[in-house]
Amino acid sequence: MSGGGTAAAAPAVRRLALIGVGLIGSSLARAARARGAAEVIAGYDANPQHLARAAELGLLDEVAGSAAAVAEGADLVILCTPLGSYAAIGAEIAPRLRPGTVVSDVGSSKACVLRDLGAVLPDGVALVPAHPVAGTEQSGPDAGFAELFVNRWCILTPPEDAAPEPVALVERFWALLGSTVERMDPQHHDLVLAITSHVPHLIAYNIVATADDLESVTKSEVIKYSAGGFRDFTRIAASDPVMWRDVCLNNREAVLEMLARFTEDLTALQRAIRWGEGDRLLELFTRTRAIRRQIIDAGQETAAPDFGRR
Amino acid sequence: MSGGGTAAAAPAVRRLALIGVGLIGSSLARAARARGAAEVIAGYDANPQHLARAAELGLLDEVAGSAAAVAEGADLVILCTPLGSYAAIGAEIAPRLRPGTVVSDVGSSKACVLRDLGAVLPDGVALVPAHPVAGTEQSGPDAGFAELFVNRWCILTPPEDAAPEPVALVERFWALLGSTVERMDPQHHDLVLAITSHVPHLIAYNIVATADDLESVTKSEVIKYSAGGFRDFTRIAASDPVMWRDVCLNNREAVLEMLARFTEDLTALQRAIRWGEGDRLLELFTRTRAIRRQIIDAGQETAAPDFGRR
Ligand SMILES: NC(=O)c1ccc[n+]([C@@H]2O[C@H](COP(=O)([O-])OP(=O)(O)OC[C@H]3O[C@@H](n4cnc5c(N)ncnc54)[C@H](OP(=O)(O)O)[C@@H]3O)[C@@H](O)[C@H]2O)c1
Ligand SMILES: NC(=O)c1ccc[n+]([C@@H]2O[C@H](COP(=O)([O-])OP(=O)(O)OC[C@H]3O[C@@H](n4cnc5c(N)ncnc54)[C@H](OP(=O)(O)O)[C@@H]3O)[C@@H](O)[C@H]2O)c1
Repeated sequence: MSGGGTAAAAPAVRRLALIGVGLIGSSLARAARARGAAEVIAGYDANPQHLARAAELGLLDEVAGSAAAVAEGADLVILCTPLGSYAAIGAEIAPRLRPGTVVSDVGSSKACVLRDLGAVLPDGVALVPAHPVAGTEQSGPDAGFAELFVNRWCILTPPEDAAPEPVALVERFWALLGSTVERMDPQHHDLVLAITSHVPHLIAYNIVATADDLESVTKSEVIKYSAGGFRDFTRIAASDPVMWRDVCLNNREAVLEMLARFTEDLTALQRAIRWGEGDRLLELFTRTRAIRRQIIDAGQETAAPDFGRR
Repeated sequence: MSGGGTAAAAPAVRRLALIGVGLIGSSLARAARARGAAEVIAGYDANPQHLARAAELGLLDEVAGSAAAVAEGADLVILCTPLGSYAAIGAEIAPRLRPGTVVSDVGSSKACVLRDLGAVLPDGVALVPAHPVAGTEQSGPDAGFAELFVNRWCILTPPEDAAPEPVALVERFWALLGSTVERMDPQHHDLVLAITSHVPHLIAYNIVATADDLESVTKSEVIKYSAGGFRDFTRIAASDPVMWRDVCLNNREAVLEMLARFTEDLTALQRAIRWGEGDRLLELFTRTRAIRRQIIDAGQETAAPDFGRR
């Protein structure tokens, strides 16, 4: 290894294969290129427009015609597609993977990855699922950017019996992109993300739909006066519908468990409002401030009010 | 009236009395000063620190020792305090108001204003409730700023039998501050704001509390991985607890009606997840995008993803 800066260091991966070059896949391509994390970046996407656009943007060294073709000869294959596509992609690429290949992904739910990919991969191919806790509400290759993963968490959920080398490779890859890597049990990951991401998205989708269905308040009134708080929910509820359908279907138990807790608490809140229990309301609205403070202190957010939207 | 710029135009109000100089009251003082909307700005706040700070910031021409004192001799009195304080403030100031005075407010709920203030004000004093649909999650005089109301809606809910002059005065005042003024029936206002503001705040408070109470996921995990969506809810749930308690207690019917609709829809969503109804989920997650588009098109929001927080 020649001495000096990051660019001169050996790349984590010789040949990186990206299946899916949308928001996350294209950001991975950009970040891996910018930080010298892969020697060759090959890409495939079932959406021909997205694949052509990623090529046009210069994000890929090689453009492949199928998932099987892109995976062939790769050192690290990363699935950057909705969770519902994993089983079919796994079946398609499995026969073409050479021993020593590491298969990973970026999916928002993790127990399902072991279930859908773990069984079909051949011996000698390691599975190291990953979830970068980073994203936006936008989709497609134009929405991606190289800095998406910087100072964000990336959670790895390797199987219990995983060999150390493939895990270290994926860990090194994400660290090179600027992420802080953590390991977690996949079931626990799914519970944590259900409350920190999946349920917030679902209730945002739900209230936007509720507002959309009202007869007593018109849609144009909802739009006009959305600055009162509703607006923020519409941003979250603008995220990719296929991605969120697949998260619901593939993290069903954890999502339903957290939704049950949420509705239980909401019932108590409704009751406190109905009975005019001011002290109880005040107590509830006061203690939620502490968690905000801790998120700001943990550097996960800035204290600037409303991000200039005010 | 001398010709020329705004500053040379006659102010809308000779003597403006602000009761409460927190986020909204101090922003009003700043905006009225900056735009020449009042000749003299007098202020009172029950919180001595806030009152002293507003004076120190040079926001007030006169600092009063009580609500009654500040209201005496005023042309326009604006209550900028939590809704729960209105009845007592009304009773205190009523005997000191001279005929011709206009009383207004900035409260987030409107039917209760007529109920709490309408009855106690003497003959010859007009009540013109107002609600600027503008704010942040912060409180106190340091959080205010002059531009808060620019290009925001301000909703007036005058009683049906209101004389035209006081309504025109309040309208002119808010227009000078840069707001677009609308009139609405107070009951209808309360329904519209219940769905566009109150219920979004309540479900944000609720999910933050749910996360705070979990045993299966630790608080530090919630904080660490909050970038997945939860973080945005904590901002909304950091708003002033007293203000939101008072909104719940004073807009009870509309809030409960909208919460009932929300929970009904959420039950259907839970059921669709439980039964794995992918098409139904996809349909729901797709149609909510349209409303976001319309909010952006209406200029109530920018399309920039996640406001740079990504
Ligand atoms: N967005 C986020 O904030 C975020 C954050 C963390 C993790 N993730 C995870 O990242 C993954 C991708 O999400 P994204 O936001 O990057 O979505 P995206 O922008 O829509 O990109 C996904 C790409 O994969 C393509 N695709 C779909 N099925 C395919 C298949 N069978 N084979 C090959 N390509 C296929 C899509 O084409 P079409 O457009 O034609 O479907 C699209 O071009 C998901 O698993 C999601 O859970 C997302
Ligand atoms: N914040 C928003 O986004 C927003 C938007 C639109 C409308 N509003 C409405 O604006 C009003 C004020 O909200 P805000 O955000 O400006 O709150 P704020 O920053 O907390 O200011 C309210 C001020 O009034 C003081 N106060 C409380 N009771 C009083 C009384 N009886 N007499 C005199 N002063 C009293 C408070 O003192 P303490 O701090 O000691 O309580 C505080 O200094 C509320 O009715 C709210 O519904 C708020």
